[in-house]
Amino acid sequence: MARILNVGIAQLGPISRNESRQDVVVRLVALMEDAARMGCDLVVYPEAALTAFFPHWWIDDEDELDSWFERAMPNPAVQPLFDAARRLKVGFHLGYAELAFEDGRKRRFNTAILVGKDGEIIGKYRKIHLPGYTDRRPGDPFQNLEKRYFEVGNLGFPVWHAFGGRVGMMICNDRRWPESYRVMGLQGAELILLGYNTPVHNPAMPETDDLGNFHNQLVMQSGAYQNGTWVVGVARAGVEEGVDQIGQSCVIAPSGEVVVQCTTLGDELQVARCDLDLCNSYKTSIFNFAKHRRPEHYGLIVERTGAGDVLGR
Amino acid sequence: MARILNVGIAQLGPISRNESRQDVVVRLVALMEDAARMGCDLVVYPEAALTAFFPHWWIDDEDELDSWFERAMPNPAVQPLFDAARRLKVGFHLGYAELAFEDGRKRRFNTAILVGKDGEIIGKYRKIHLPGYTDRRPGDPFQNLEKRYFEVGNLGFPVWHAFGGRVGMMICNDRRWPESYRVMGLQGAELILLGYNTPVHNPAMPETDDLGNFHNQLVMQSGAYQNGTWVVGVARAGVEEGVDQIGQSCVIAPSGEVVVQCTTLGDELQVARCDLDLCNSYKTSIFNFAKHRRPEHYGLIVERTGAGDVLGR
Repeated sequence: MARILNVGIAQLGPISRNESRQDVVVRLVALMEDAARMGCDLVVYPEAALTAFFPHWWIDDEDELDSWFERAMPNPAVQPLFDAARRLKVGFHLGYAELAFEDGRKRRFNTAILVGKDGEIIGKYRKIHLPGYTDRRPGDPFQNLEKRYFEVGNLGFPVWHAFGGRVGMMICNDRRWPESYRVMGLQGAELILLGYNTPVHNPAMPETDDLGNFHNQLVMQSGAYQNGTWVVGVARAGVEEGVDQIGQSCVIAPSGEVVVQCTTLGDELQVARCDLDLCNSYKTSIFNFAKHRRPEHYGLIVERTGAGDVLGR
Repeated sequence: MARILNVGIAQLGPISRNESRQDVVVRLVALMEDAARMGCDLVVYPEAALTAFFPHWWIDDEDELDSWFERAMPNPAVQPLFDAARRLKVGFHLGYAELAFEDGRKRRFNTAILVGKDGEIIGKYRKIHLPGYTDRRPGDPFQNLEKRYFEVGNLGFPVWHAFGGRVGMMICNDRRWPESYRVMGLQGAELILLGYNTPVHNPAMPETDDLGNFHNQLVMQSGAYQNGTWVVGVARAGVEEGVDQIGQSCVIAPSGEVVVQCTTLGDELQVARCDLDLCNSYKTSIFNFAKHRRPEHYGLIVERTGAGDVLGR
């Protein structure tokens, strides 16, 4: 048995601050057309892929901040991508900044959608693990204001029956947290899609700046292996408005092995043939959760948020 | 600031079925004496380190089964190791099969203890993630009967204030489960000690036999990084009673990097200088749990044991 899904990873190079959504969508469609020629069923784009990554800057003015968000999806600027999907019969995963009006107020989320080969939206995910902080840090070479500009996602870690398997989504920093993968693994996820914007330099811990690529793959490899799932991670890479970001977009097999990987820091398409049935070895033996997990000993994971003292005995 | 702990990894080669505990303890003491000469504060021995790994065989007779277990710790056969610890002022971590009389009945656990430089037991852990099965599989070249011979540990994943830091223990298969590390990480663990017996060949999924060493390090590296803790894993290695087992005992830094690693499949001591303060970069920034974790979205981790269907939306 084999359930082959051909997945294209559509890494993006930098997007300049004044580059329009229309121009970015031209780049996205070009990558999708290449992917279609390579027989792809699905193309995965990065996080917040329609504009420059504005959480790197302090923005005071609310109208200016709102201008970085999408009020509807699709919208006229992005419609050509949906049209291309329908025409080429290629699904896609796309991250974008979402402005929603819910519960009687304006809300902002870091969002991703999964779109089918018919150009219809299958599902939406809103980023849960927002990195960074809410205050201004003038001494740092750039800001990391996701905790200021976005609310924590309110849609959980959903998994969808799609593309002949079970498909989940996460975004960027979610991939460093084993809980993200596990909640999807417990729903039988076979393919987890994610985009990221990851600066090379972390002003809060510069002593680890040389380890960015290592950590990027380490967390996706272990998340894949420990849940018996494919993991697809796609970067916006290169130097964007002065911020140097890692690339290394890749597809990880349920074995934890890297199947394909980008090696540039620009727009780059690579393709992996993902057999969803390769998940079965892991899900039915060493990671047969029903046989081996012991939730009665995992309580602290939901009972504590931060680290506390050792448990009394 | 630095809180340096010198940790010796005391990998063992095979132990034959007819090798006495006394003979094994001679090997353990020899490794400890070398470790003391290297300035070690602590020596880490493998899982069930006092005998051959009997869960690889079907044992019908209850008296014979019991003969593989320790009824007290220390006991006369193991006392020389405790004496050496006191004499050399070196602590140790030791795995053994434990026969206990609790709740009015005989109980068997796969256990590990942490012993101080004064030769006194600081804490005990009983393995939670038992691999394998309870039935006999005559077609397999060896058995994996931990689920038959042991009960699931009933002491949780405790962490102790010890050796100037916070020290936790797990055993073998526990290391493949991110929950094990996380429950300790939530208690501020800075050093996690574990031993393992890991066959090269897994009869349930032979297609992954070439990945044993890769998976061994992958799970310890991600567990270390994602919790900002040192992880020390020590093997019983080599061909024991016909079962070929991996080695690759190693010390992993909070960065996820391998600091030191054994390269033989026999008795081998290697030493790492572990600065417990290296945990701080991770615990106070990218893995500051209090700031970034979102337990309200982790419920499934404790609500489900096995994988189920996708959540309805």
